[in-house]
Amino acid sequence: MPKTMHAAVVTAFGKPLELQECAVHLPGPGQILVKTEACGVCHTDLHAAKGDWPLKPTPPFIPGHEAIGIVVALGAGVTIVKEGDRVGVPWLYSACGHCEYCLSAWETVCAEAKFGGYTQNGGFAEYVLADPNYVAHIPKELNPAEAAPLICAGITTYKGIKETEARPGEWIAISGCGGLGHLAIQYAKVMGLHVCAVDIDDGKLAHATRLGADMVINARAQNPGEVLKKAIGGGAHGVLITAPSLPAFKQGIEMTRKRGTCALVGLPPGEFPTPLFDIVANCITIRGSFVGTRIDMAECLQFAAEGKVKADIELQPLASINTIFERLEHGDVPSRVVLDFTDTKSDKIADEARAAKPAVPVHA
Amino acid sequence: MPKTMHAAVVTAFGKPLELQECAVHLPGPGQILVKTEACGVCHTDLHAAKGDWPLKPTPPFIPGHEAIGIVVALGAGVTIVKEGDRVGVPWLYSACGHCEYCLSAWETVCAEAKFGGYTQNGGFAEYVLADPNYVAHIPKELNPAEAAPLICAGITTYKGIKETEARPGEWIAISGCGGLGHLAIQYAKVMGLHVCAVDIDDGKLAHATRLGADMVINARAQNPGEVLKKAIGGGAHGVLITAPSLPAFKQGIEMTRKRGTCALVGLPPGEFPTPLFDIVANCITIRGSFVGTRIDMAECLQFAAEGKVKADIELQPLASINTIFERLEHGDVPSRVVLDFTDTKSDKIADEARAAKPAVPVHA
Amino acid sequence: MPKTMHAAVVTAFGKPLELQECAVHLPGPGQILVKTEACGVCHTDLHAAKGDWPLKPTPPFIPGHEAIGIVVALGAGVTIVKEGDRVGVPWLYSACGHCEYCLSAWETVCAEAKFGGYTQNGGFAEYVLADPNYVAHIPKELNPAEAAPLICAGITTYKGIKETEARPGEWIAISGCGGLGHLAIQYAKVMGLHVCAVDIDDGKLAHATRLGADMVINARAQNPGEVLKKAIGGGAHGVLITAPSLPAFKQGIEMTRKRGTCALVGLPPGEFPTPLFDIVANCITIRGSFVGTRIDMAECLQFAAEGKVKADIELQPLASINTIFERLEHGDVPSRVVLDFTDTKSDKIADEARAAKPAVPVHA
Amino acid sequence: MPKTMHAAVVTAFGKPLELQECAVHLPGPGQILVKTEACGVCHTDLHAAKGDWPLKPTPPFIPGHEAIGIVVALGAGVTIVKEGDRVGVPWLYSACGHCEYCLSAWETVCAEAKFGGYTQNGGFAEYVLADPNYVAHIPKELNPAEAAPLICAGITTYKGIKETEARPGEWIAISGCGGLGHLAIQYAKVMGLHVCAVDIDDGKLAHATRLGADMVINARAQNPGEVLKKAIGGGAHGVLITAPSLPAFKQGIEMTRKRGTCALVGLPPGEFPTPLFDIVANCITIRGSFVGTRIDMAECLQFAAEGKVKADIELQPLASINTIFERLEHGDVPSRVVLDFTDTKSDKIADEARAAKPAVPVHA
Repeated sequence: MPKTMHAAVVTAFGKPLELQECAVHLPGPGQILVKTEACGVCHTDLHAAKGDWPLKPTPPFIPGHEAIGIVVALGAGVTIVKEGDRVGVPWLYSACGHCEYCLSAWETVCAEAKFGGYTQNGGFAEYVLADPNYVAHIPKELNPAEAAPLICAGITTYKGIKETEARPGEWIAISGCGGLGHLAIQYAKVMGLHVCAVDIDDGKLAHATRLGADMVINARAQNPGEVLKKAIGGGAHGVLITAPSLPAFKQGIEMTRKRGTCALVGLPPGEFPTPLFDIVANCITIRGSFVGTRIDMAECLQFAAEGKVKADIELQPLASINTIFERLEHGDVPSRVVLDFTDTKSDKIADEARAAKPAVPVHA
Repeated sequence: MPKTMHAAVVTAFGKPLELQECAVHLPGPGQILVKTEACGVCHTDLHAAKGDWPLKPTPPFIPGHEAIGIVVALGAGVTIVKEGDRVGVPWLYSACGHCEYCLSAWETVCAEAKFGGYTQNGGFAEYVLADPNYVAHIPKELNPAEAAPLICAGITTYKGIKETEARPGEWIAISGCGGLGHLAIQYAKVMGLHVCAVDIDDGKLAHATRLGADMVINARAQNPGEVLKKAIGGGAHGVLITAPSLPAFKQGIEMTRKRGTCALVGLPPGEFPTPLFDIVANCITIRGSFVGTRIDMAECLQFAAEGKVKADIELQPLASINTIFERLEHGDVPSRVVLDFTDTKSDKIADEARAAKPAVPVHA
Repeated sequence: MPKTMHAAVVTAFGKPLELQECAVHLPGPGQILVKTEACGVCHTDLHAAKGDWPLKPTPPFIPGHEAIGIVVALGAGVTIVKEGDRVGVPWLYSACGHCEYCLSAWETVCAEAKFGGYTQNGGFAEYVLADPNYVAHIPKELNPAEAAPLICAGITTYKGIKETEARPGEWIAISGCGGLGHLAIQYAKVMGLHVCAVDIDDGKLAHATRLGADMVINARAQNPGEVLKKAIGGGAHGVLITAPSLPAFKQGIEMTRKRGTCALVGLPPGEFPTPLFDIVANCITIRGSFVGTRIDMAECLQFAAEGKVKADIELQPLASINTIFERLEHGDVPSRVVLDFTDTKSDKIADEARAAKPAVPVHA
Repeated sequence: MPKTMHAAVVTAFGKPLELQECAVHLPGPGQILVKTEACGVCHTDLHAAKGDWPLKPTPPFIPGHEAIGIVVALGAGVTIVKEGDRVGVPWLYSACGHCEYCLSAWETVCAEAKFGGYTQNGGFAEYVLADPNYVAHIPKELNPAEAAPLICAGITTYKGIKETEARPGEWIAISGCGGLGHLAIQYAKVMGLHVCAVDIDDGKLAHATRLGADMVINARAQNPGEVLKKAIGGGAHGVLITAPSLPAFKQGIEMTRKRGTCALVGLPPGEFPTPLFDIVANCITIRGSFVGTRIDMAECLQFAAEGKVKADIELQPLASINTIFERLEHGDVPSRVVLDFTDTKSDKIADEARAAKPAVPVHA
């Protein structure tokens, strides 16, 4: 095991990440060490690096919660994974295991949950520590880069669709066809749903159609609620809002069928005006859905292992992280960027980038 | 059958109701005629008389959707009730019977639903026409006056509690302890729930305790979310907001446990700011619930028939309707006012009141 | 409207059906008259004709509960269908509309339900009376013959699958790949399920594979429970037994995953030995499912209208009914036989067959 | 910590238990040691001691899976309980924590589950080792002896009632009013259900009435299905069979309402004849339910902590175990026998009983 590793470190909120040479920590009791093969880059990483949310991480820290890699070391007492297993280190890094939520298979809302790349160092690094009870088990059919977005974007949308309670043969409207939405469309189709995809970008809508959407609406050109209701005789049984902007939320409610559910999976700041009269008179449900549990993880990966869901990915070296963040901020990432740790060329670039910087310790 | 009847008629929005001598219409095919014994007065009647809501009734019309009475005439083809039956003529006056909602036992959101005392003449009259397929069947254990509030305030809160999906042994917070809330507390208790009652009136909270509330919070004196979470280690599994004012809604969300459901049963105008970050991160459900179906009606009446739920009522003659409306507007009705049509003294007063007025036809 | 029609009549249990010239009855109030275009032949018709079940129909009667046709006359008061509509007259001919089951959208178990081709004359006739509230509405994309099996075999299996509560991505085992099973396989696939088809006929299993089954087991050659559990690491989440013979039932239980549901949709006489120890220790559910409701009907027809489910059919003239029954008894019907009333040639044969017989009145 | 303890040991199937002086084992990593205060005696202990079931324990072993006691020692790494905590060591001694059942909060059917007093030494001893992740946490309001029956008989019936899916206001029939049934009646009442208690012993039925049963039927004197259906207009929405004898099972099915669920919680050998025709035509569900999960445990104990459920218990010393078993076999235990380890007098008797026996090692 090397003593040090390359990592992209948030040293202060709002500053560019620094590519550093950090210590590789050996796994303590109940921990495992994972050698990163790939790690997706999520909007949440950007929020983390900027300290956008009320509960903030503590710099210096390493972001990244879509890390896929190989178990290379086991801490004392670990039996449920073994060296050589391919695992994912997700946003839900760990939970307490014994509160009412953990005991009822809702570990995602455990009050003691820890979060990968947020409260714990994450996958923008060549090695990452993990809790073996909470890692994703990557099916052999998937390669690391294509698995990466599934353990956050994939599970989040898959769970969100489940939470709408839409049944096979019914309609789901998916608002936003980007990093989350393009996966949502695929999951919805394999779940037997009719899909209406909504976006303001015709290119993304064309892609939505290729991915199986039965109907698309450009929300800039048309009123989604009106168009949908006219086309299918009522709103959608389920609505999934992948990026809850104010217009997306408003349209989402309007697209919801009587007795339907509008599920939200993003974490927007602020308060959103909600038309309670319509909610009550139409018996509508608005539901928050937050990532997914371990059983959701296994299910969402299995669909991909069977070839039914596939993430659009763009491979980039770790060294490009600040450029990627800039593009994310400007909405300039058509699919999911995945950091590729198996690319030796990118390693070399990273090495050069680091040449000028001294190694800085990062908390484990 | 008399040719005319006493009725309180809305002749124009915002004007006092007029006590009139109206024609008694014989039931057409598929209709029944009910001789009113009692009719509750609901806030909705006030909204109807003022034309507050987007979809307005058409004056002249007779309000009242908590009418209890005896079937006195059957239209052609009616077999499911018989003369002498005691029935209630509720808000859900009728529905189409064959749309997707009717066929799945959610007739409450049928697009062709008609509403008692709103789109159809209601129970502020000595006789009322009804659709026998949608009347409530009043158990023999209940007298008309005590049944009246149950067919609107009772069913609405009972259904709202069901819609929170809180299970026996869990907690429900009930916001508002007045006409709806005092029934909600009783329904929640017979459903095996722990009840936290919230109001800003200590007198109502004292009554809530008498009705079985396990805990009460005066929202003027304390922060309900904080107090509840401290007392029971988290929010309530279900929250029922009986009167969705802005502060009540805000407090309701704050009182909701992770994965809990906050149900709304009132129809407030305007938009309510909603903290989506908290909704998502805590996997909270906000759900609109609108009156209840016929099976809900039978269930909520049955609890009352068994003596487990009892409405607080204040009897008044029909002639007092305008005074009652004024009191309602000023929040000056501690319990449910029920118009008592069996009180001959009140009839006499009404007769006198009408003496100066000519009979005016009212549409059937 | 002709005064008489061709019909196949059960004159006595166990006797061949008689091809008769029967009176065409005009629809009474609330009834409609349907000109039959096609009518499927179901095992239940055979049971009816033989008087196999405890509650027997009363000869003379006309069997057939998969009739598809055009509405040609409306009785007084009928508004929900119009002349020219294509409808299906199903097994659930009508229900009371106001019992606890009807009010909760479970009209299939209404105690006053009437049954097509059993308690009411059915579709083995050129005209059939129907209750417009309970007819199936045939989507324009379907022709009569292909719709026919869907309104009994289709809905029964579709509902049975729903009743297993298996979710997209999970496994369902379908026992029996004939008239019901070949539809069940298709419904299960469009509902996002993995399908294991079980039969004792390799030809049917080959067809199952063509219809999308992910795995097939010949129960004569192998132990389905063992094979399935080995292949997928546990039993199936749902099991649908289309023909509950004793071995099929035994295998069905053995194929059920822990916490899974084994649904039965046939009506076998007698009692079946059930291993309660295994049921309890594995938390298994055994569930009876009986045809389907009107909302199930609309859903199952919609899948077919979208081209996702298609019944195998063999067209035959009404005159062949006794031959068809003989073949059914000997298991000699590979797919669903549908009587084709649009085939003038078959009519001619039928006319000749009737030449020797006098017209006999049949109760309406 | 003493080196040895008193324990009742099964040395060979079918032989009387031996009161032995056994070694007290210190807890290994992840284990805890519990000093027993009380341990209920369950029919399952009798089955264990006789080797009645297919999967047998390995003598010598110590039965008992209703042990309540104080944590007196923690193995390495244990943090979720602390010394001095009062815990219960239940039938579900431990599970794997990461299979599909464990991850979906159904650890009761984990294939690697271990069972207290069966695969692991149990609570018929002064000390018992436990897995801290699976112990019951005993609320401070309960004393050890009254808590003991709840962690097996209590949770089993509570869960079984939940599994019937009967809702507040509906009816549940509880077959058998003994050790399990008398708790089931109480749980059903606090869950808002109407209870029909069925037994063949008038004394038990009188007790059932005292515990809140709304109706009782002596199955020896009357036909429970007929009586119940006549009294309440149909069968019970839920049926709980606490002791699945053949007549109890048959009656249970007959008592089940259309669309209702008949839940079984006992583990009878052999196969039970099941009338599938009725199951299908009435859409009935038969469901096995096996003990309960940790969240069920917390819920069922909470009801008791609030004083709403109370087990009938009879205290006995450990030394009486063989007499208790004999009485159990002869149906001569009106309530639940609990071994009282806090009774010094009983200890003395036990000491004397052991005087003649040498200490024998028992596997941990």
